Amino acid sequence: MTSPAILIQKKRDGQELSAQEIQEFIEGISKGQVADYQASAFLMATYFKGMTATETVALTQSMLDSGERYDLSAIPGIKVDKHSTGGVGDKVSLILAPLAAACGVKVPMMAGRGLGHSGGTIDKLEAIPGYRVNLSRSEFASVLADVGCAIIGQSETIAPADRKLYALRDVTATVECNPLICGSILSKKAAEGTEALVFDVKVGRGAFMKTTAQARKLARDLISVGKKMGIRCKAVLSQMDQPLGCTVGNSLEVIESIALLRNEKPFRDLETSSIDLRELTLHLCAHMLELGKVVKRFSDGRKLAQEKLADGSAFQVFRRMVMAHGGDIEAIDHPERLPLSTQKIQLKSRKKGFITSIDSEALGHLLIELKGGRKKTGDKIDFGTGFILQKKVGAQVKLGENLGWLYAPESATAADLVQFEERFHSLLQISSQRKPLAKLILDPSVH
Amino acid sequence: MTSPAILIQKKRDGQELSAQEIQEFIEGISKGQVADYQASAFLMATYFKGMTATETVALTQSMLDSGERYDLSAIPGIKVDKHSTGGVGDKVSLILAPLAAACGVKVPMMAGRGLGHSGGTIDKLEAIPGYRVNLSRSEFASVLADVGCAIIGQSETIAPADRKLYALRDVTATVECNPLICGSILSKKAAEGTEALVFDVKVGRGAFMKTTAQARKLARDLISVGKKMGIRCKAVLSQMDQPLGCTVGNSLEVIESIALLRNEKPFRDLETSSIDLRELTLHLCAHMLELGKVVKRFSDGRKLAQEKLADGSAFQVFRRMVMAHGGDIEAIDHPERLPLSTQKIQLKSRKKGFITSIDSEALGHLLIELKGGRKKTGDKIDFGTGFILQKKVGAQVKLGENLGWLYAPESATAADLVQFEERFHSLLQISSQRKPLAKLILDPSVH
Repeated sequence: MTSPAILIQKKRDGQELSAQEIQEFIEGISKGQVADYQASAFLMATYFKGMTATETVALTQSMLDSGERYDLSAIPGIKVDKHSTGGVGDKVSLILAPLAAACGVKVPMMAGRGLGHSGGTIDKLEAIPGYRVNLSRSEFASVLADVGCAIIGQSETIAPADRKLYALRDVTATVECNPLICGSILSKKAAEGTEALVFDVKVGRGAFMKTTAQARKLARDLISVGKKMGIRCKAVLSQMDQPLGCTVGNSLEVIESIALLRNEKPFRDLETSSIDLRELTLHLCAHMLELGKVVKRFSDGRKLAQEKLADGSAFQVFRRMVMAHGGDIEAIDHPERLPLSTQKIQLKSRKKGFITSIDSEALGHLLIELKGGRKKTGDKIDFGTGFILQKKVGAQVKLGENLGWLYAPESATAADLVQFEERFHSLLQISSQRKPLAKLILDPSVH
Repeated sequence: MTSPAILIQKKRDGQELSAQEIQEFIEGISKGQVADYQASAFLMATYFKGMTATETVALTQSMLDSGERYDLSAIPGIKVDKHSTGGVGDKVSLILAPLAAACGVKVPMMAGRGLGHSGGTIDKLEAIPGYRVNLSRSEFASVLADVGCAIIGQSETIAPADRKLYALRDVTATVECNPLICGSILSKKAAEGTEALVFDVKVGRGAFMKTTAQARKLARDLISVGKKMGIRCKAVLSQMDQPLGCTVGNSLEVIESIALLRNEKPFRDLETSSIDLRELTLHLCAHMLELGKVVKRFSDGRKLAQEKLADGSAFQVFRRMVMAHGGDIEAIDHPERLPLSTQKIQLKSRKKGFITSIDSEALGHLLIELKGGRKKTGDKIDFGTGFILQKKVGAQVKLGENLGWLYAPESATAADLVQFEERFHSLLQISSQRKPLAKLILDPSVH
């Protein structure tokens, strides 16, 4: 093969790589002929120089070819999945997969771990004691057939090249790059055997895409590469200026998801609700049902989803899914048994006024400091840390009023706690003037 | 410390890092808290975004501080060193260090290994059986005091952070970047204890700097950072369109150097000579003698250098240096005993006309294919491969006339040999019109 340094240099200098060169490089990564430090230099060069459409499809295909591809055609029903580009407090998948399954599509979801400042569905599910994210191929197919949905991590055999690159991007500041995002998402989605796919492209401070224009560009890139890979696609642009729902952190987000599935409040005396989380989940579900041909019209999909959430069907599917994955059902029925740190501090407002901003990117980074995310590939996550947000953007607060709680690692010292608290306050803006709330769903349907 | 990914991102986004952030990152590299793949992503981001003067000095100081610093003040004489930015066939140091020492300065030279397509003095010296490039600190000082010069590799204790970065840059296409070049060179030069330094900044196809303007910019950056590190500096710009001298490859370059030191031809019946190599060496030596206060005027330095080369004093110092380093003196007195491949092919001209170009960058890459350089950190070098150039740019050639020889690895198959030969011919230009020869020394003195 061509020396990896030469291919890195070509990309660095903005030349187009041939499909064969990309395939060689990606194969080299899987086989260990291209070192991690070469892969990351290539990623950073790609961050600056981009990729053409042809290069991006070649990248996606090479990553798909680096592993096996599931064939789910023996399982009845149309397979539809959802993918979010990553946000803070985004626990939609935990609710959406069982909800869509309860409505009649099959959801073969292969989800990711935390990336950059954003959380990962797989890390959240691992907060449930016993939940096995690594099902074998046949276990995955049988859970999907029996329960209607299964959420697994990327198995070692699926797109191993992407697995390596994904982990590297997370710790080398090369996450925000359209061709890498498209390649990573679509190689896995093509491999998991889904027929249709709804993208939730996040926009805002806590998202990788900071503007609607960037997000729309990514949505169109994803749809275009997805179609070339043989998958029917739609996309939604949703707002990620502040965290979704009222919790951030692994166990805490599972607790909130269970409460929503049970049509309950996640915590007694909590003022905020999961209304934004619920709204977005229903919207995405309606798209999935339309793509999955369960309903003809979007509005019918939304109605059906609302019913299946309200009547507890979605929660029953969630319970069955957790059981089928080996998860502790006691922790689902008694979510207070999920791992939670006892080092809990109350956050009190230092100002009076209206909350105008909660910097969710900074909150994501603070969660990493709390060990609720990773600084480096392989770092162990502390599931019990995070935040409950008592007040969200738009709320009026008095001086000294409760803003929420911060769960620090058990090992945190008194000095650590002071520092965490300072950082929390620094990412919050409280003003004397109320600011109009940004819309949650910025574009209900990108084609 | 701040998460490495955050610092990479800051650099990626073009923000200036503080001296403390740079120090943290570099310390993290030495201590293994920053992974290689993070270091290389940082290097690529720096390639694209550069560094301010303040950042570059902080980088240099941090790399210096990552290891020990030699104190040579007890050794009489002014310590002067030379540094070349790297070329193809550049074996100047092997001749210059003993020559300058023979003229009366002390030369504490810490040299490098091959980087990108360019060769390294240390790899060349290791072609001499027994030559120890890793002397201890006290051995280095005693060889310097006794012989007048010593050429060692970068010891593990000197700028370990640079050692790591240097190896990474080589294989991640991040060599050509002024702040990284300045930091790497000057952290080592400050650590080795030299008081003055002459830079040989190469310009042209075989150099990292392709234009005189780029090279002059680098020369000025080097001089400016050097002065801030307390070293008296001068620079020369020299041409590297075609290889220097008539050999490329490790043993072959040692053979040519010995011949020059003995005032002999390197190979019987060879048409080309080492005249460019000799000229540049004398020029650099004159600068060293002026900076080292052995002479008052450059022209006197040149005259003295000429004498000490002609009367064999420089060769005697070279022999003593090799002996002091444990090298096999038999191989010096009988250079035909140096490791040389028996897989030798003659290169015959496929055109008649004038040689107008020998692409030395491509030749450097071809040497890597011959295993005379590295594709990946840690690759083992085959000292016995390379090229003898019978004809250089400007020479007239007949169809079928001998252009030189290619020494392939012993393991090369017949098919490999054909491929190597093709690649050699593709990097050579022969035209019907003679082209004026480019000057060897493009700027005799940059201040």
